[in-house]
Amino acid sequence: MAKTVPFTLADAREWKNQFPTPFYILDEEGIRQTVTDINTAFSWNEGFCEHFAVKANPNPSVLRLLASLGCGTDCASIAELEMSRRCGMTGHKIILTSNETSDACYQKAKEVGAIINLDDITQIDHMERAVGIPDTVCCRFNPGSFGISNAIMGNLYDSKFGMTEEQLFEAFRILKAKGVEHFGIHAMLASCSLDETYYPALAEKLFDLVLRMREENDITVEFVDFAGGVGIPYRPEEKKVDILKVGAEVKKVYDRLLTANGIQLRIMTEMGRFVTGPHGYLVTTCVGKKHIYREYIGVDANAANLMRPAIYGSYHHVTVLGKENEAPCQIVDVVGCLCENNDKFAVQRELPAIDEGDILVIHDGGAHGYSMGYNYNGSLRCAELMMHADKTVTLVRRAETLEDYFATFDIDPVFSKKE
Amino acid sequence: MAKTVPFTLADAREWKNQFPTPFYILDEEGIRQTVTDINTAFSWNEGFCEHFAVKANPNPSVLRLLASLGCGTDCASIAELEMSRRCGMTGHKIILTSNETSDACYQKAKEVGAIINLDDITQIDHMERAVGIPDTVCCRFNPGSFGISNAIMGNLYDSKFGMTEEQLFEAFRILKAKGVEHFGIHAMLASCSLDETYYPALAEKLFDLVLRMREENDITVEFVDFAGGVGIPYRPEEKKVDILKVGAEVKKVYDRLLTANGIQLRIMTEMGRFVTGPHGYLVTTCVGKKHIYREYIGVDANAANLMRPAIYGSYHHVTVLGKENEAPCQIVDVVGCLCENNDKFAVQRELPAIDEGDILVIHDGGAHGYSMGYNYNGSLRCAELMMHADKTVTLVRRAETLEDYFATFDIDPVFSKKE
Repeated sequence: MAKTVPFTLADAREWKNQFPTPFYILDEEGIRQTVTDINTAFSWNEGFCEHFAVKANPNPSVLRLLASLGCGTDCASIAELEMSRRCGMTGHKIILTSNETSDACYQKAKEVGAIINLDDITQIDHMERAVGIPDTVCCRFNPGSFGISNAIMGNLYDSKFGMTEEQLFEAFRILKAKGVEHFGIHAMLASCSLDETYYPALAEKLFDLVLRMREENDITVEFVDFAGGVGIPYRPEEKKVDILKVGAEVKKVYDRLLTANGIQLRIMTEMGRFVTGPHGYLVTTCVGKKHIYREYIGVDANAANLMRPAIYGSYHHVTVLGKENEAPCQIVDVVGCLCENNDKFAVQRELPAIDEGDILVIHDGGAHGYSMGYNYNGSLRCAELMMHADKTVTLVRRAETLEDYFATFDIDPVFSKKE
Repeated sequence: MAKTVPFTLADAREWKNQFPTPFYILDEEGIRQTVTDINTAFSWNEGFCEHFAVKANPNPSVLRLLASLGCGTDCASIAELEMSRRCGMTGHKIILTSNETSDACYQKAKEVGAIINLDDITQIDHMERAVGIPDTVCCRFNPGSFGISNAIMGNLYDSKFGMTEEQLFEAFRILKAKGVEHFGIHAMLASCSLDETYYPALAEKLFDLVLRMREENDITVEFVDFAGGVGIPYRPEEKKVDILKVGAEVKKVYDRLLTANGIQLRIMTEMGRFVTGPHGYLVTTCVGKKHIYREYIGVDANAANLMRPAIYGSYHHVTVLGKENEAPCQIVDVVGCLCENNDKFAVQRELPAIDEGDILVIHDGGAHGYSMGYNYNGSLRCAELMMHADKTVTLVRRAETLEDYFATFDIDPVFSKKE
C-alpha cells in the first residue's frame, strides 16, 4: 500500500514559519478514525474498552482525545498514572500493567483508582504491603509458547512478563481467599504483529483459561485484557491489519467458547502503536548533502527524535514533500547530526533527488517515537503539533530548551540561575 | 582482571539513607588517576591535550574536574559547547566535532572560541556562511578502510563521518586559499577498541598524511586529533589498555615519521569512555525475585538509567554488595521495571544468592550511561553522586521529578501549574 502524507509541502512550509523543524505532526483525524474502527470492531462486546498504552505517545492532548472517544489508558509508572489522571481518566479507565512495581507506584495506582494488573505471583504480597487488597485484580499470563510468529517479543520462555498457568490459578485462589471479588486476565503474546489471526488465537487461549478458572477455581473472570501487539505496516509492501475483521473473528471465538457456556465478560485492549503509530509524522529539513563512500542526506532531526531506526534498524518510510510523485533516482543514507554512526533514519534507501532545504517526512513516528527520545550528545527533544481536520495545528508539546537540558543541575551554582 | 567496587555495602547503605536508589556513583579519584595516566602517557608531546567527549558524561562536576587536570572538551551540540563554557573551558580547549552542523551550532562554536572540526568538504561553505573563515580549522579524515578490528564502528566505508583522502587534500587547499593559517587533522577509526596497537597505527596513518600535506600542499599541520576509540574492559576476562605503553608506542611513530622530518605538532585525544566509563557505578536495590521459565532479579533501576544492555546487548558486570566473595549459585536475568522485554541489565548471568533489599552495583556506567538515558514509560532519570577520596559524596545531578517530566507541557493549562 502506498504510504501517503495527509498534508502538503505548502502546509509544512507554513507550519515551519512558526515552528522550526524538526517537529512531530500528530494527525488528530487519523487517530480518531483508528479508534472509531477499534470501537466498532468490538462494539458487540458490552463494556469493551481500549486502554491506550501511554508509553507509545505520552502526550496529554492525545490522552484527552482518546478519553473523548471512550478510551482508557495502560500505564507502567507513576508519571503515566498521573498524566492519565490529569487528562480526566479515573478509576477502572486506568490499568497499571507494571513489572517490578514499587510501593509508591502501587500507591499511585490506588490513588487514581486504577485496576492493578499483577505481573507475578510474588506481587500479591507486594501489593498487599503497599495498598492492601483491592476489590478488583487482574493477573498477567505467560504461556511460555504461542503459535503466532513473534519477532519482537522473542520466545515467550525468555520473556520476563507474566505468570505460568499454574501460578495464575494459584494466584487467583490466593486473591479470592484474600477477598478479591472481580477478576481479570491479561496477556500480551506478540508485539507488532500484522497477523490477523493473533487476537483470535489469543482469545481462544484466554477464553479457555476463563472456562477452566470457573471449573477449577469457581471464579468467574469478568474481563480479559488482550493487551497490545497488533502491528502497523511500516513498509509500503505491508498490509494494514483489518481490525473490523479481527473483531468479528474474536466474536466467533467468544460466542463459541463463552456465550455458549453462559459466560459474559468485558474485553479490553491495550493498543498503543496501532492507535497512534501511523498518525505521527516527523517533519525535518535537509541541511546537507555529503558524498564520500556513499551518498548522505543530512537532516535536522536525529535519533533523539526517533530512535527506532538507530537501535533496532527499523524501517521508517521517508517522503520528500513536493516530490511524492518523482521517481527514485539515488540510493542514500538519511542521517542526523549525532556523533554516532547509527544515527541514520534510512540506510541505502532509494529516494528522489533531494536539495538542501527540502522538507522530508519520516512516517509512523506516532508511537515509540518521541517517547523513546533521549538527550544524547546534548540533543534537545523537539515539539509536537496536533494537526486538526482543517489542517490548522496546535502546539501540544513545546520543544526543549537549554534550560530544560540543564534543569537537573539546579543544585549547581553555575547552572541554577538563568543566563 | 577481577572487577572490584571502590566502596562497600556500608558506604552504599549510608548514601541510600539520603539518596534513594537508583543513583550513579562517579569515582572522582578514579577519573583523576585515569587522566593523570593519559597526561603522563603523552607528556613527551608538547601541547598534548585530552578533549573529553562530553557525550560520554555531560556533567558539570566531571567537566570541572577534567578542566582542573588540563583537559578540554569535544562537543557536538550547542548544549555541550555551552556546558563547556560554563565549566570554565574556553577557546581551543573546546573542539566542535560535529556532523550535519547547524548554523546556530557554528555560531555557538565561534562564540566560545572552539576549534571547528569539519566533517565534510561541503561544510566549508556552511561554516563560512554561518561564521566566516576562522584562523584555525581541523578536518576529519575517513580512509574507508583501516587494519584494526572495529566491531562498533563497523566498516568505515559505511561510516557517515569524515572526508576521503582526496577531499581532505582539496579541503586544505581551499581553506588555505581562504586564509586559514593553522590546520589540524582528526580521525576516529575504531570505537571501544582494546587493541593497544590502535593509536600507534592511527598515528602512522595520520603522520603520513601530515608529511604528504607538507609536500603536496605546502601546509604544515599543527595538530593531529586521534579522537576516541580506546576501549575499556567491560568483562572480567578483558584486559585494561596500558595507556602508558600506548603513549610510548605513539612516540616511536612520532619520532620516526615527524621528528626525523623536522616536524613538531600537538597531539589531541577525545577519549570519553576511557576517561569516565570505569569510574561510574549504577547503584540499585533488588525489589523483587520472580520464578517463571527463568529466574529473575528485579531491581529499581531500568534501561532509562543505563540503556546499553537493552539496546546493544552490552555486557555490564554486576556485583552484589556485601557478597563480593560469595560463589555464584544461580543463573538469573537482572531486570528493570520497563514494559519492554529488553529491559534487562544481565541475561542468564551467574550470581550469588540475592535477597530483596540487597544492593547491586552495575559496573562501567560512567560513559554512555546517564547520557543515553531516556524517559520511556514515564521513567525519571536518576541522581548522580560524586564520591570523593574520603568516601563522602556530593550530589552532582539531582534526580528528575514529575515536574521535569511534564516541563514541555507548560503550554498546556492542565500542566502549566505546579500541583
